[in-house]
Amino acid sequence: MQTTHTGISTLSDNPPAPDLFPDAVAAACLQQFQLAAPLVHCLTNEVVQSFTANVLLALGAFPAMVVEAEEAAQFSAMANSLLINIGTLHHSRAESMLAAITAANHAGTPWVLDPVAVGGLTYRTDFAHHLLALKPAAIRGNASEIMALSGMATMGRGVDSLDSSLAALPAARQLAQQVGAVVAVTGEVDYLTDGQRDFAVRGGHPLMTRVVGTGCALSAVVAAFCALEGDRLHHVATACRIMSHVGGQVALHVGGPGSFIPAFLDGLYQLTATDLAQTEAKMRQSPDATH
Amino acid sequence: MQTTHTGISTLSDNPPAPDLFPDAVAAACLQQFQLAAPLVHCLTNEVVQSFTANVLLALGAFPAMVVEAEEAAQFSAMANSLLINIGTLHHSRAESMLAAITAANHAGTPWVLDPVAVGGLTYRTDFAHHLLALKPAAIRGNASEIMALSGMATMGRGVDSLDSSLAALPAARQLAQQVGAVVAVTGEVDYLTDGQRDFAVRGGHPLMTRVVGTGCALSAVVAAFCALEGDRLHHVATACRIMSHVGGQVALHVGGPGSFIPAFLDGLYQLTATDLAQTEAKMRQSPDATH
Amino acid sequence: MQTTHTGISTLSDNPPAPDLFPDAVAAACLQQFQLAAPLVHCLTNEVVQSFTANVLLALGAFPAMVVEAEEAAQFSAMANSLLINIGTLHHSRAESMLAAITAANHAGTPWVLDPVAVGGLTYRTDFAHHLLALKPAAIRGNASEIMALSGMATMGRGVDSLDSSLAALPAARQLAQQVGAVVAVTGEVDYLTDGQRDFAVRGGHPLMTRVVGTGCALSAVVAAFCALEGDRLHHVATACRIMSHVGGQVALHVGGPGSFIPAFLDGLYQLTATDLAQTEAKMRQSPDATH
Repeated sequence: MQTTHTGISTLSDNPPAPDLFPDAVAAACLQQFQLAAPLVHCLTNEVVQSFTANVLLALGAFPAMVVEAEEAAQFSAMANSLLINIGTLHHSRAESMLAAITAANHAGTPWVLDPVAVGGLTYRTDFAHHLLALKPAAIRGNASEIMALSGMATMGRGVDSLDSSLAALPAARQLAQQVGAVVAVTGEVDYLTDGQRDFAVRGGHPLMTRVVGTGCALSAVVAAFCALEGDRLHHVATACRIMSHVGGQVALHVGGPGSFIPAFLDGLYQLTATDLAQTEAKMRQSPDATH
Repeated sequence: MQTTHTGISTLSDNPPAPDLFPDAVAAACLQQFQLAAPLVHCLTNEVVQSFTANVLLALGAFPAMVVEAEEAAQFSAMANSLLINIGTLHHSRAESMLAAITAANHAGTPWVLDPVAVGGLTYRTDFAHHLLALKPAAIRGNASEIMALSGMATMGRGVDSLDSSLAALPAARQLAQQVGAVVAVTGEVDYLTDGQRDFAVRGGHPLMTRVVGTGCALSAVVAAFCALEGDRLHHVATACRIMSHVGGQVALHVGGPGSFIPAFLDGLYQLTATDLAQTEAKMRQSPDATH
Repeated sequence: MQTTHTGISTLSDNPPAPDLFPDAVAAACLQQFQLAAPLVHCLTNEVVQSFTANVLLALGAFPAMVVEAEEAAQFSAMANSLLINIGTLHHSRAESMLAAITAANHAGTPWVLDPVAVGGLTYRTDFAHHLLALKPAAIRGNASEIMALSGMATMGRGVDSLDSSLAALPAARQLAQQVGAVVAVTGEVDYLTDGQRDFAVRGGHPLMTRVVGTGCALSAVVAAFCALEGDRLHHVATACRIMSHVGGQVALHVGGPGSFIPAFLDGLYQLTATDLAQTEAKMRQSPDATH
């Protein structure tokens, strides 16, 4: 799902693309998610908190933002999963994040890292590298961020991704193996890997790059899906798939990024497992569809 | 008004429900409010600041968020009322809140407490109990929060209310008497008490629980109405009534929580005293309406 | 553009109004802007960060909010311009702002000041006066703020403008000369000055005063336009013109401030240089248009 940049990828020198994640599996995971209705502790950036909360609520999850260090630790132990997004990191919030992660790890609460703009900025890059040792269950970033986090070179300027997501798949695999996490590298196409198995997720729309927080909200949805029991790679792929599916559908019927926002939240709210399953059936019937 | 949870209440063992707050009185209070156009100092949580400001602006009030301790104190003395919402409490903001409350009390500016998630989390629970001694004019919370604040047991998990609002009415009455405040316990039905007199407010819609900040914005509207001269119980009940009325109406005509937000703000902006008064007249004509 | 107050201005004792900024020039500047797609570092207030980012994204600019002092300095050197908005100023953010401005000045990155509520509140007023010595490229405020910043008297109560924007034009000119900045004093009509030349910008709508952050977002757009090479007075006037133009058009077709927000973002996204140029042509054909 494109969340920050609409450039055309050069696919030369890229590895072969993995298989599409099956919508039938996504549909089953969504059903599991809607029954679970997880409570997600979000330590995220200042800019996107409201949109993030509304995305989770639309999907039937329960978001909560508890920011003081002692309470953040208490709450991480109660929550079903924890999101760490370092977009507007500062010292006091970094302390709360560390307290929350420590408590989450102690309680067995899975946590997810969104390494916003890692690579270009020193403080957060050091912090994100330190967090890798604390064993995130999943990492969601764009190509620049995933390459920077894995130690590979990047040419991004910090907040947008100039690298193709497919070009970052080897870095994602390496990071997944090193950390023991599912890694999602998102862009025009999203790629998911647990270091052994890979999936591709299509969908989305360039308009999503004109709405602040679509990537950050996706990471929150990844965190919410990490609360589920079962195959984490499937769950993270489902998070990517539902955001791409709804975003791609909604973008076709709105006049711009402003009306995209309410329509997207409505779409997430209305989404059923049957919708997802039928999408795939429709695509099979019309093999020419460029999707 | 349901703001966080859509569960069906078990009404057994609950006290008898108080009378509905009359829409004719709400209409008169709304008229007074629109003439007063109060300036409301909002020290509220990070997640809902924008929505809170837009709700107040839609109603014709003037919101302002001034957060540095010295300035927060200066501004509380100039404002017509002050909101304290502890949703994302941390040490530095807690200092600003104390400075603002002290200045407000000195200047005779009424202030309102929204004790978000009190009960489950230590730091804010201690802080909120400390604030009770500083004499809020009103307190607005869900059943779990009001029961926790009054010292009664709760079974909530911090951010949603698993208790029926009617079950919390005795706790609300006790809290109102102890603090000398109007207490609003909100849920599927809202209950208001000044410790002697009670009212019920119906309306709202489960969809409001899928939009972040509906409860927090209600507390800001309660604060705005506390700026008015006259019967504070009536004013706080009116704040609840207009949010429930507009929310309930709007929810019937939208496709989900995304389109609810702009429609709700439009509805608050368009609301007139006549609309409120006519609602009651209509309900009298059709006694079967379940509303 | 009215961003906070809908009062009727008393125009007596005001200086003669300057010429309208030509839409043909605005159209050319918009074209330059869309090609440049500037990266704008926004250190702005807590309430409006999401709306500010969405306004910039809708226009094709790239917003980023980097708040820790060391990183804010690093990022200001990479960005094409920097916005400093002191609406929710506190000590830690003030340090980051100073670090960012120092780095911006060192790197030749232009920066813009939005002196929110200067005059009524001590801490920010002292801070804003200190910032003037650090040479902002432009300053955008309402009449009260510009008069307070220039040392002239004001009768505002801090967050709204009770002074006519035309009455503040002499103060704006003086401030522009003293600081070496373009100054925009915005209200029912916007006035722009570089201390020598003045322009007026019409448009906007009172509904914009019922949406939080329209003024703050305008300042961000001013910052984005300050990234361009060429005549800065023209660029700042264009920023004001496109916000007034789109806001004024959109306000005629919405039901209130809620639906204004998505429609405004869509309007900014759809805006072309041709639209702006044609507006002027239409106005010439119908000289009776009150606009």
